[in-house]
Amino acid sequence: MKFICDKKDLAAALKIATRALSNKNSMVNPILDCVLVKTNGDDEIELVCNDLELAISTTAPADIIEHGCVALDGKLFTNIINGLSNGDVSIDCDEGNLNTVIKSGKAKFNIPGKPAEDFVGLPKEKTGVHFEVPVYEFCRAIAGTNFCTTQDSSMRMMEGECITFAGDTMTVTALDGHRIGLRRIYLDSNEGQNAKVIIPVKSLNEVAKIADGDTMDVSVEEGNVIFRFGSTIVNTRVIDGEYFDVDKIAKADTPIKVTANRKDLLNAIGRSTAIVEDKLKKPLVVTVDDKELRLDAVTALGSTSDAVDIEKTGDDIRIGYNPRFLMDALKAIDDEVVTLGMLNRKSPTIIEDEEKTYLYVVLPVNINN
Amino acid sequence: MKFICDKKDLAAALKIATRALSNKNSMVNPILDCVLVKTNGDDEIELVCNDLELAISTTAPADIIEHGCVALDGKLFTNIINGLSNGDVSIDCDEGNLNTVIKSGKAKFNIPGKPAEDFVGLPKEKTGVHFEVPVYEFCRAIAGTNFCTTQDSSMRMMEGECITFAGDTMTVTALDGHRIGLRRIYLDSNEGQNAKVIIPVKSLNEVAKIADGDTMDVSVEEGNVIFRFGSTIVNTRVIDGEYFDVDKIAKADTPIKVTANRKDLLNAIGRSTAIVEDKLKKPLVVTVDDKELRLDAVTALGSTSDAVDIEKTGDDIRIGYNPRFLMDALKAIDDEVVTLGMLNRKSPTIIEDEEKTYLYVVLPVNINN
Repeated sequence: MKFICDKKDLAAALKIATRALSNKNSMVNPILDCVLVKTNGDDEIELVCNDLELAISTTAPADIIEHGCVALDGKLFTNIINGLSNGDVSIDCDEGNLNTVIKSGKAKFNIPGKPAEDFVGLPKEKTGVHFEVPVYEFCRAIAGTNFCTTQDSSMRMMEGECITFAGDTMTVTALDGHRIGLRRIYLDSNEGQNAKVIIPVKSLNEVAKIADGDTMDVSVEEGNVIFRFGSTIVNTRVIDGEYFDVDKIAKADTPIKVTANRKDLLNAIGRSTAIVEDKLKKPLVVTVDDKELRLDAVTALGSTSDAVDIEKTGDDIRIGYNPRFLMDALKAIDDEVVTLGMLNRKSPTIIEDEEKTYLYVVLPVNINN
Repeated sequence: MKFICDKKDLAAALKIATRALSNKNSMVNPILDCVLVKTNGDDEIELVCNDLELAISTTAPADIIEHGCVALDGKLFTNIINGLSNGDVSIDCDEGNLNTVIKSGKAKFNIPGKPAEDFVGLPKEKTGVHFEVPVYEFCRAIAGTNFCTTQDSSMRMMEGECITFAGDTMTVTALDGHRIGLRRIYLDSNEGQNAKVIIPVKSLNEVAKIADGDTMDVSVEEGNVIFRFGSTIVNTRVIDGEYFDVDKIAKADTPIKVTANRKDLLNAIGRSTAIVEDKLKKPLVVTVDDKELRLDAVTALGSTSDAVDIEKTGDDIRIGYNPRFLMDALKAIDDEVVTLGMLNRKSPTIIEDEEKTYLYVVLPVNINN
């Protein structure tokens, strides 16, 4: 295999593909530390990484002199390419021993390659159900929900987010046993197809980091989901199992409605966290009357009280929270004004907008009377 | 004690003083986690932190309503103040139980205080030798040498930098057994006074971070050095002992002079580090002839060769380096062109400018023939 390509193009493509590099520096299976470099037609190369959960393939323009492919240590190859000066880079892999020579200006590197056959490529594609998803909205939906997942649960599905397509609506849901984050994206077109998958949040975060362009194609297959944008293909395994049914909670009756300026509320709760540290396991006590939402807390560190002006319908209420969960939700919202819906001090609080683009559910914590 | 001050002023002063907060969260001596808050005259407060190696005092304008002082948990107090909205903050400490109430808008905090008498204040000042040092040059000298210290040596003095004043020259020296970094600052005035101290690099880094204004006063006392700028006073303990005499090395004969473009050389060495990783314990082999400096390395990862155009006087030479030590020195230099002085492959390489503002010494590593 031999080709010449531009350093910047190659570095940019490597940056994308190596997001799927196993970062476990796999002693057991060193091929997972490799990037597959492969000539593709006469004018581009393809780079592929696969950590067995997530696989990413992308391309870079190149002058192909001799077709072929080789698996190279991904971190080493990236370090070498990133160090080169701008300009042409020539990559020459000996078909016999797979030694690969990288040249640029006076710099020359010689690194060992591994057989491409050992490399676990992208899973074979089946006929999936395709959806066209706007990239910007997708990235916002992931950023607005990914903090509601947890890696500490025995329930594997809490490490992922549930993505459903139904009618013209794509819904992204995450939950960790204490709260739910949900975002809806209204699609321009969907030919009446439905789908429901649980995708590891790590994979979704990677897609959100590298996705570009206006829209991407999302294809739901058996056991896999494929994201396509530009010349990049991301293939992620899905998490097996039935996801929790959040609809019942989302539609729960919350007769008490508290409307507040989002930033004021966020800042006041943020202030309280100087006193209400997670490890102290004390609640932030919220007391709502007709005009004010009061925040009180007493912990080993001291005490705090604060208040925010509100508008309210329904009864007065006193309810305890982990302030971090409220803050995470309020931070993820862009609206100037938010409405918190409550029923009683044992029932979840629901923050939802009128257009139903987001829904956050926060479970209260016990307070002593 | 009671006073009112502006949130921004107080937060800015806390940011400076708390750089000397013990970050060990001292169970043994919790007063080290405290900031001393003290009214000072009628229109300012003084904040002091002291981790017993470094003590910092600074002031903020305030309307003093009742004089007094109290020691407050530094991290907690800072978290509270940083969370407040801009505007007036009132601080009110009960003289009896030291409970301190912090109020701003509707936010109110109550935190316990500790007696000011328990607080270890700034060391008493003696009559030191004073020097006026330009702040910008001081910060550059620290940034240009601090990487040559080490915390891993049994020699305490290698955790510090040696600062000497002699004639109109201030010299900052650091060394870690493998290399030396030295910077000279030419002072506008010095009334013929001399001084030599070893200061912990941690203290010097903190001074460089918070120093402002054109010049600062450096006062060398017995066991302490005091830096003064604006309304801030930094007092640091010195490290006892006799510093290494680097003069002999600095004046060593280096008949081979290699002149190269600094960035080209730095980039070429940087490229080699993809192959020459520290943990692989292999040298970067530098071969110098009349026109080129060649860089070669072979490690478990692969091999690399590269070259940089040079001008040379003296013999050809082949010499091994730890590339990181060369890079650190080259990164710290601003000059477009650098000159490396060498004698033989066992003797240190010296990088020095004509004006003698900097001097870097790098010991070579063994190469097999």
